[in-house]
Amino acid sequence: MPAPTSNAILRIHCADRKGLVAVITSFILANNGNIVNLAEHVDCDCGMFVMRVEWDCADFAIPREKIAEQFQTLVASKQEQMHWSLEFSDRPLRMAIFVSKLSHCLFDILSRIESGEWDVEVPLIVSNHPDLGSIAERFGIPFHVLPISAETKAEQEARTLELLAENDVDFVVLARYMQILSPAFIERYPDRVINIHHSFLPAFPGGRPYHQAHERGVKIIGATSHYVTAELDGGPIIAQDVAAITHRDSVEQLVRKGRDLEKTVLSRAIWAHLHHRVEVCGQRTVVFD
Amino acid sequence: MPAPTSNAILRIHCADRKGLVAVITSFILANNGNIVNLAEHVDCDCGMFVMRVEWDCADFAIPREKIAEQFQTLVASKQEQMHWSLEFSDRPLRMAIFVSKLSHCLFDILSRIESGEWDVEVPLIVSNHPDLGSIAERFGIPFHVLPISAETKAEQEARTLELLAENDVDFVVLARYMQILSPAFIERYPDRVINIHHSFLPAFPGGRPYHQAHERGVKIIGATSHYVTAELDGGPIIAQDVAAITHRDSVEQLVRKGRDLEKTVLSRAIWAHLHHRVEVCGQRTVVFD
Amino acid sequence: MPAPTSNAILRIHCADRKGLVAVITSFILANNGNIVNLAEHVDCDCGMFVMRVEWDCADFAIPREKIAEQFQTLVASKQEQMHWSLEFSDRPLRMAIFVSKLSHCLFDILSRIESGEWDVEVPLIVSNHPDLGSIAERFGIPFHVLPISAETKAEQEARTLELLAENDVDFVVLARYMQILSPAFIERYPDRVINIHHSFLPAFPGGRPYHQAHERGVKIIGATSHYVTAELDGGPIIAQDVAAITHRDSVEQLVRKGRDLEKTVLSRAIWAHLHHRVEVCGQRTVVFD
Amino acid sequence: MPAPTSNAILRIHCADRKGLVAVITSFILANNGNIVNLAEHVDCDCGMFVMRVEWDCADFAIPREKIAEQFQTLVASKQEQMHWSLEFSDRPLRMAIFVSKLSHCLFDILSRIESGEWDVEVPLIVSNHPDLGSIAERFGIPFHVLPISAETKAEQEARTLELLAENDVDFVVLARYMQILSPAFIERYPDRVINIHHSFLPAFPGGRPYHQAHERGVKIIGATSHYVTAELDGGPIIAQDVAAITHRDSVEQLVRKGRDLEKTVLSRAIWAHLHHRVEVCGQRTVVFD
Repeated sequence: MPAPTSNAILRIHCADRKGLVAVITSFILANNGNIVNLAEHVDCDCGMFVMRVEWDCADFAIPREKIAEQFQTLVASKQEQMHWSLEFSDRPLRMAIFVSKLSHCLFDILSRIESGEWDVEVPLIVSNHPDLGSIAERFGIPFHVLPISAETKAEQEARTLELLAENDVDFVVLARYMQILSPAFIERYPDRVINIHHSFLPAFPGGRPYHQAHERGVKIIGATSHYVTAELDGGPIIAQDVAAITHRDSVEQLVRKGRDLEKTVLSRAIWAHLHHRVEVCGQRTVVFD
Repeated sequence: MPAPTSNAILRIHCADRKGLVAVITSFILANNGNIVNLAEHVDCDCGMFVMRVEWDCADFAIPREKIAEQFQTLVASKQEQMHWSLEFSDRPLRMAIFVSKLSHCLFDILSRIESGEWDVEVPLIVSNHPDLGSIAERFGIPFHVLPISAETKAEQEARTLELLAENDVDFVVLARYMQILSPAFIERYPDRVINIHHSFLPAFPGGRPYHQAHERGVKIIGATSHYVTAELDGGPIIAQDVAAITHRDSVEQLVRKGRDLEKTVLSRAIWAHLHHRVEVCGQRTVVFD
Repeated sequence: MPAPTSNAILRIHCADRKGLVAVITSFILANNGNIVNLAEHVDCDCGMFVMRVEWDCADFAIPREKIAEQFQTLVASKQEQMHWSLEFSDRPLRMAIFVSKLSHCLFDILSRIESGEWDVEVPLIVSNHPDLGSIAERFGIPFHVLPISAETKAEQEARTLELLAENDVDFVVLARYMQILSPAFIERYPDRVINIHHSFLPAFPGGRPYHQAHERGVKIIGATSHYVTAELDGGPIIAQDVAAITHRDSVEQLVRKGRDLEKTVLSRAIWAHLHHRVEVCGQRTVVFD
Repeated sequence: MPAPTSNAILRIHCADRKGLVAVITSFILANNGNIVNLAEHVDCDCGMFVMRVEWDCADFAIPREKIAEQFQTLVASKQEQMHWSLEFSDRPLRMAIFVSKLSHCLFDILSRIESGEWDVEVPLIVSNHPDLGSIAERFGIPFHVLPISAETKAEQEARTLELLAENDVDFVVLARYMQILSPAFIERYPDRVINIHHSFLPAFPGGRPYHQAHERGVKIIGATSHYVTAELDGGPIIAQDVAAITHRDSVEQLVRKGRDLEKTVLSRAIWAHLHHRVEVCGQRTVVFD
């Protein structure tokens, strides 16, 4: 779990082979790092090794700005092919929120930030409708209205990408944003656009999932948060949750009960992303909890 | 809830109109019946009224063998178009169990019956494989092996239907029976064949749902019990349940965790059916809990 | 479920005897009411009959301001001893919110109201600390700071009761209000003060339940919403929910995960209360869902 | 997850200090072991380091009968104070089952063993009542009836301990065994007697928890599996689960719904114990899932 002091967080992703844990933990030990959290996973299906290790930087022998360089030297010396990334727990990420007309996920996110539950910066909110501007204003966050039509979509996405770049945004949250992003947009933020879909995917992808659920007569509804890929509602799942329903629940009641799932599941996914706990592995995620 | 004494259980299903509850409860009151349980539901989508009422027969003015006749007279006098059925809590249903090679659902069912948890008669178990015969034998239940191939399917189904008829079977439970019943078979037992499918339908219908779930990377697996219709895994859902999983769960672990869901969900559905608590309403069920 | 049009909601609570459902539904039928929802419950332990019936007032023969009088005449004519209450779905309740320093439940409640999810009026927020005043201000709700010490408690409670009376408050929600109300205060709002406690009661009553839970090593944490009675954390439970935890969860993580339970469970309890779906029956509640 | 081939499973438990993971994984690497599973946990409250590592023995440089000796040499050379244990995945544990009159947990356990779901040996079942002897017989397991009264308790426990010793029993499962074991008995099997209690402990310890739950009016019931200690229902919790209930559930229905929780939760705890995934840490457990 993230400590208030500064921890280094190293994530690794490579083909599995013997000794990887020993190599990495010995590097940390040799430099006097105290591991506060270590988790590894071998995905037998695709032969991938995934690891997340977090250590206290307080007495670490390498200055934080040199850790990446020295770790890369180690990796090169071992002739490893390795994807890795290094983060520090005291560097908050910068998150853009995209919304349309529904406020429940936005309120949930903003209230967590204001109460100090999350350490994240939100330089901007983007919307294709003006409706939620007053909420953004009350929380003191710049609100950009960029309406989308078939004709303006390319132009507005380009403008949005500029805004994200200008604001040094690390990742994007679609908080019930009712537009489909173009593949070109998604490619700019791979595994960095988080969506919430209001069904337990892969059941009921696409539009009106509560209507679909009611019609099918399921006894459980759900919500799914996932990274956005070019395939609609098909990206790697980060978090899911469900709620029991009965025949007494009309579509309106499903929508009402579903809202609570949506905001909770989306916030769980954001929390995991903020703490560098999610690693994408093909079409699946490893979420170190 | 079912009392140890004899209760009458009346289920009604008709187009909604004013006064239905008053008509029915007044009939019971006028004949000195004490209602121990009443539940009604109006399905707004299809305009159907569904009701289940259970009363103690002890002091009821009409002898039990005459209740149906007198209720029909009342219905006719009111010019109602009404589907209704009358059951008595002290008349156990007769259930056939169909199995293949997996024993967990069968053991779960038989242990509930032996311990007295359920009041049901099981005159026979049917299987397309001999493997589970020794279990049937230990519980003293006749076991019929009827192997199915493309060539023998029609003949074996005919033989099976004969067995069900000879044994006065009320309903059939497919306890991980790995054959698809023909539409002709299903028509003989409408809303009376209960299946367990090892996914949260409508996700992952058909074969190898745990493999599908693993490949898709879901964070939740499920099981669904439903009445069998001509559409594969498409019948009205009676019960569903789910379990959280993580990236650490291989397909083998999904199978293991799923077994517990399968047996529990199937048994919940059977319990509801045994207690006349399920009413099919189009593609959905009303389950009075 | 509550319709957008005006429905009458009658709740009844009395000793069980034959024919109660027939008497009440016949009254509604005779006056041309269309029942949209009916649920009854017989509590076998205390021999109580509890019923909730909701009907569309559109074509009802009795004007709404006369319904109570005429129903009382009926009750008297039958010599029934009956507790009953009549509400109308288009008359929103007036709710006071009491808070201290934690904002998550308050934000959750206010965001539901602002988005139109709930139809309720909040004339005031009361707090023993000034911290959350800026939130109240942003939502345009009067905020009263009434600090409590041992010396001032009686006086401040008296002042609070005056505020509630002046504002025609129907019920009070303690949204993580960290003061214990005196028995005298509670008596003024019997079954009308809703609290959220951050454990699955009756486990871990009193202070620091997450610390207690961590120390005991439970694998599940919970939250409980209940009506406040003179017994600390002992009142009738309206709603509970739980979340799985592991050894990896420190107390801080329990607090974090628990917040989501607290706000969700409290809001479920408020929703049920707002829709006149909760009936207290001794130390238990009947919640018509 | 345990592979069908032989894996070594090393569990370690000691005061936390820098470099423990590196020391242990380097030992495995140096001897050509391929780690298939590694999990560690630092309990910040008590400063304990807990680790479980599982590696494939196929190409391991140390013969399996020498691994313990060589690991101890390593530990001594590092001057570590360390509790550790070594198990092999192909050596099934030997489990005694204690029962009284209720069969649901026993059936659940035996059906898992018969179907091959678990790899465990059950040399004997002990009961203080003869009722379940016929079940033991059908599964071919010796059944010992040892009735207990205040006078005979000491003698019968002594006889039971002899039976356990004669049968080389590794651990004991109390499958709804309705006797309290003496502290002397428990001391002989520390952290090796697993009980199932029919409530979400610490709520409703002791007798008749479903009656207690009904009386208190909870909306959720639970079951808890824990290691038995001298404190009644106070030992370290291995697994818990819960089910939602409503006012419609009488005590009889709680008992019925609770049975499913009991057998599932107990079996989950046994599975974790069988796979050497549980480590007791003071009053809590670390369950590596």
